[in-house]
Amino acid sequence: MLIGKVIGTVVATRKDEKLNNLRFMVVRQMDVDGRETNSYVVAVDAVGAGVGEVVLYATGSSARQTVLTDKRPCDAVIMAIVDTWEVGGEVRYQKE
Amino acid sequence: MLIGKVIGTVVATRKDEKLNNLRFMVVRQMDVDGRETNSYVVAVDAVGAGVGEVVLYATGSSARQTVLTDKRPCDAVIMAIVDTWEVGGEVRYQKE
Amino acid sequence: MLIGKVIGTVVATRKDEKLNNLRFMVVRQMDVDGRETNSYVVAVDAVGAGVGEVVLYATGSSARQTVLTDKRPCDAVIMAIVDTWEVGGEVRYQKE
Amino acid sequence: MLIGKVIGTVVATRKDEKLNNLRFMVVRQMDVDGRETNSYVVAVDAVGAGVGEVVLYATGSSARQTVLTDKRPCDAVIMAIVDTWEVGGEVRYQKE
Amino acid sequence: MLIGKVIGTVVATRKDEKLNNLRFMVVRQMDVDGRETNSYVVAVDAVGAGVGEVVLYATGSSARQTVLTDKRPCDAVIMAIVDTWEVGGEVRYQKE
Repeated sequence: MLIGKVIGTVVATRKDEKLNNLRFMVVRQMDVDGRETNSYVVAVDAVGAGVGEVVLYATGSSARQTVLTDKRPCDAVIMAIVDTWEVGGEVRYQKE
Repeated sequence: MLIGKVIGTVVATRKDEKLNNLRFMVVRQMDVDGRETNSYVVAVDAVGAGVGEVVLYATGSSARQTVLTDKRPCDAVIMAIVDTWEVGGEVRYQKE
Repeated sequence: MLIGKVIGTVVATRKDEKLNNLRFMVVRQMDVDGRETNSYVVAVDAVGAGVGEVVLYATGSSARQTVLTDKRPCDAVIMAIVDTWEVGGEVRYQKE
Repeated sequence: MLIGKVIGTVVATRKDEKLNNLRFMVVRQMDVDGRETNSYVVAVDAVGAGVGEVVLYATGSSARQTVLTDKRPCDAVIMAIVDTWEVGGEVRYQKE
Repeated sequence: MLIGKVIGTVVATRKDEKLNNLRFMVVRQMDVDGRETNSYVVAVDAVGAGVGEVVLYATGSSARQTVLTDKRPCDAVIMAIVDTWEVGGEVRYQKE
């Protein structure tokens, strides 16, 4: 998994039928020091994440292991909202 | 998933038999600010996308989860056409 | 999938038994403008491709979806020989 | 697999139900000469690794092959703690 | 697959039980011109490769398709020892 920040949304009405009722979020990857990078992914939201939240996302076939994404053509999923993230004994991020 | 722009097509008559009746599109990856990058992928079109359209594409085993691509040797699929794409409260792209 | 050019071969007599009777080709990745890059992959040939030909190759679990590669420890396969490849209305490549 | 060093933890209470009772560790990738890189991954701990330990981690679908991670939306797992790591006849790392 | 050179070993006694009796080798990726790169992977040895040998390795789910690695949390496997490797009509490598 990687840590990312939800920064936006994608709306698509014309899509494969297996994608109905899924929310697509734009997630910017964060580096290990808590900085935002230029990498991003569009992930299905499986936990009710909002724009601005720091999340964990999984990619590849593992992204189809949530109840919501099972057998769907989805290669990235937000599967957790981060509360605290600690590196080297220092808190890098704490949800308010 | 990543956001891309359909920029071309590939035609191949000699191919694995499981690939018959699939359309191969050249998709250029877009960055999170809506700029075209140098990365691309050749993806199977599962939604009737045309050249010039902005799309979502999935890669890896997830690319075989559409009805069209099931059990085929295909590692990238266009599974949605983007209507709107918003980042940081700003519209990055809107389909006309 | 990505577009590549077959530039060589690999011969290996000592190998996992499931790899018997497969041909290993060295494929150099091409960029979206038709230039050869420094990236390469060794792919199993599922379509009778020869050195010098421009091909499509799939990677990951999708590389095991051809009849030839089913259940084999193979993560890249040449699954099509490119006839024409067009980007932005211009022909990037045409097989002679 | 890659070699990494466990440098921190991530706590997340709101998550996909299949992720309950898993520990998320921040693992920094090490290069082949034993130096820490800027790449990282958040991996599930399947072997009781502590912060500071040098470990092997697997990614992708292979990360779901431990008893602990079976069928869970997890794309990275710590599956071994490194005792010794030798390159070119020299010991790069030895657990104390 | 990619071409690599076996440059070392990793020993790990505390590991997921499914990893018992597997040998972990450090493999340095080679580029298409036969030069060693800075990329590496720790791969399970399925063919009895020794340090110094040039090999083919597969990654991802394909790494679990050898008899030795079936259903194990292993994402890279050495599945062949290279005898000859030819690019552009020139021999890049020949096993002695």
